[in-house]
Amino acid sequence: MKRAVKPVVAVDVGGTKFIAAVVDGGGKMLSRVYCPTCAEQGPERVIKRLASTISQAVKESGAGMKSIGGISLAVAGIIDIKRGLITSAPNLPDWSNIRLGEILQDEFEVPAFLLNDGNAAALGEKRFGAGKGVDNLIYITVSTGIGGGLIINGELFNGTDGSAGEIGHMIVLADGPECNCGQHGCLEALASGTAIARLARERLGEGKQSILNEMVGGEIETLTAEHVTKAAKKQDTVALSVVCEAAYYLGIGLSNLVNLFNPQVIVIGGGVSAMGEMLLSPARKSMQEHAFKLPASTVRVVKSKLNPDAGILGAAAWAQQKQGGIK
Amino acid sequence: MKRAVKPVVAVDVGGTKFIAAVVDGGGKMLSRVYCPTCAEQGPERVIKRLASTISQAVKESGAGMKSIGGISLAVAGIIDIKRGLITSAPNLPDWSNIRLGEILQDEFEVPAFLLNDGNAAALGEKRFGAGKGVDNLIYITVSTGIGGGLIINGELFNGTDGSAGEIGHMIVLADGPECNCGQHGCLEALASGTAIARLARERLGEGKQSILNEMVGGEIETLTAEHVTKAAKKQDTVALSVVCEAAYYLGIGLSNLVNLFNPQVIVIGGGVSAMGEMLLSPARKSMQEHAFKLPASTVRVVKSKLNPDAGILGAAAWAQQKQGGIK
Repeated sequence: MKRAVKPVVAVDVGGTKFIAAVVDGGGKMLSRVYCPTCAEQGPERVIKRLASTISQAVKESGAGMKSIGGISLAVAGIIDIKRGLITSAPNLPDWSNIRLGEILQDEFEVPAFLLNDGNAAALGEKRFGAGKGVDNLIYITVSTGIGGGLIINGELFNGTDGSAGEIGHMIVLADGPECNCGQHGCLEALASGTAIARLARERLGEGKQSILNEMVGGEIETLTAEHVTKAAKKQDTVALSVVCEAAYYLGIGLSNLVNLFNPQVIVIGGGVSAMGEMLLSPARKSMQEHAFKLPASTVRVVKSKLNPDAGILGAAAWAQQKQGGIK
Repeated sequence: MKRAVKPVVAVDVGGTKFIAAVVDGGGKMLSRVYCPTCAEQGPERVIKRLASTISQAVKESGAGMKSIGGISLAVAGIIDIKRGLITSAPNLPDWSNIRLGEILQDEFEVPAFLLNDGNAAALGEKRFGAGKGVDNLIYITVSTGIGGGLIINGELFNGTDGSAGEIGHMIVLADGPECNCGQHGCLEALASGTAIARLARERLGEGKQSILNEMVGGEIETLTAEHVTKAAKKQDTVALSVVCEAAYYLGIGLSNLVNLFNPQVIVIGGGVSAMGEMLLSPARKSMQEHAFKLPASTVRVVKSKLNPDAGILGAAAWAQQKQGGIK
């Protein structure tokens, strides 16, 4: 007989806010609490606020702390899952020596886990979303940055340390534009929200006519991917060409994944993916052009079903899996 | 108790020759038979010759056909492992509708399997070579082309159809030099033996002074990667700079794999890798520069131990595993 799965606390640890939720074994959120991160205050105060957010989520769920099976944090960064450390995270720069997993475990007296947010989201889509029943699945989040995670033979693949799935930092144009990570030509530097905004600014800087100019009142440096999405929906030529360019590189990234993993499904989530077929359709085309025929004909490229909750639900699934209740 | 593992016939199906060997459960070759492929004669005659080569290998091994547990073919190309088909292979262009697995199974009345040669070699290194005891391992062969395979959680990962592990056709320089596969900027187009020869020809074409000119008697078009290796060993400046350039891109390919898989070990085999540290040392450096610190500090990049037998021994391991004798 399957052991009953206890509810767990899952936290999405972002650069600007936490979201803590108590989630039951079926992926239902029993509570959901927001709190600003204020990372600039340093780890000690942030951890205190994190702990009180967790306590509040437990309280609001109606479940006592004793009924909680574990705590699981999805963090944007390179996570050492064995030691429960954030080794490198752009939004939490001074956290590399803090054993966050241990601290929370001691505080709440339940097992606590850290994992990368893209990896968590992959598991979320596999367990509760667009990847249900799929054994070989890749999740990509296209947002300010690009992240992702790999489901291989039905299970989340974290790699040796926990840092597998850094899809956004696959270099597809060696010595290309600079990326947030300091490298050049990463997929993130060519197809993320940041890249889309940069491309649009470049085109406007060259004096191209576009409604984008009016949308930002001539202040080109304030232009974001959201502006480009809006303008593209209005058939603005500059915005459309920028989306096409990002989709071209996204498709090359997809083709690399298809040639490497031969997956059944690639799920695309994240803020930028909300523009839907305008991005996905040319990205699929570029993928088909660049990948081998057999794996390209097998794979389905679909939108996330859980967006934006994939990470938090996946983190919950991870803690539940670690309880031993679910394989 | 473990079931005894029968010896199997493993065949390396190359564009110029077959090598068929009877291999026991410990990875020992009991026989080894060569035969030219002569692919231009068409599938029917090639398959006949393949069958007689298999029979000869069984005969020379001293094992009767009745003691053979299966036949396993390692083929350079995109293999549909479920249907036992070669869907696309540059050296066997007219084979896409031939159910080679079934044909051999009917002929010899034992289970017959096809798999990609890079995937086979990955399994070979894991079972008998540089990857013994390693759970997360990537194998790369750097030869005329670049191939590879993935060992994930201790097992060969073939992907959904059998085409996973096409490391050579990961695009690292979008719209870069043309690849043998028809795409542009694949790792194979930048770091394989073919790429090394092309780069050297380009430098000589520009009028650069080099002992390579004398080595090929001024006939630049006859220049190969072997010439470049020999000249580099003699400290020829042009040859050294070509090797450095190939190693730079190989390192970018490695960094992509490190960021995606966070592996424990990357094993490098293939003819070009025989030049050893001259290639591997700058490739490791380039990988360290381009990958995230945590996974880059974990991974070991080592030379193949089974080169050039990794494929054939891995094919044998695959058939033995399919017998159920070995996990």
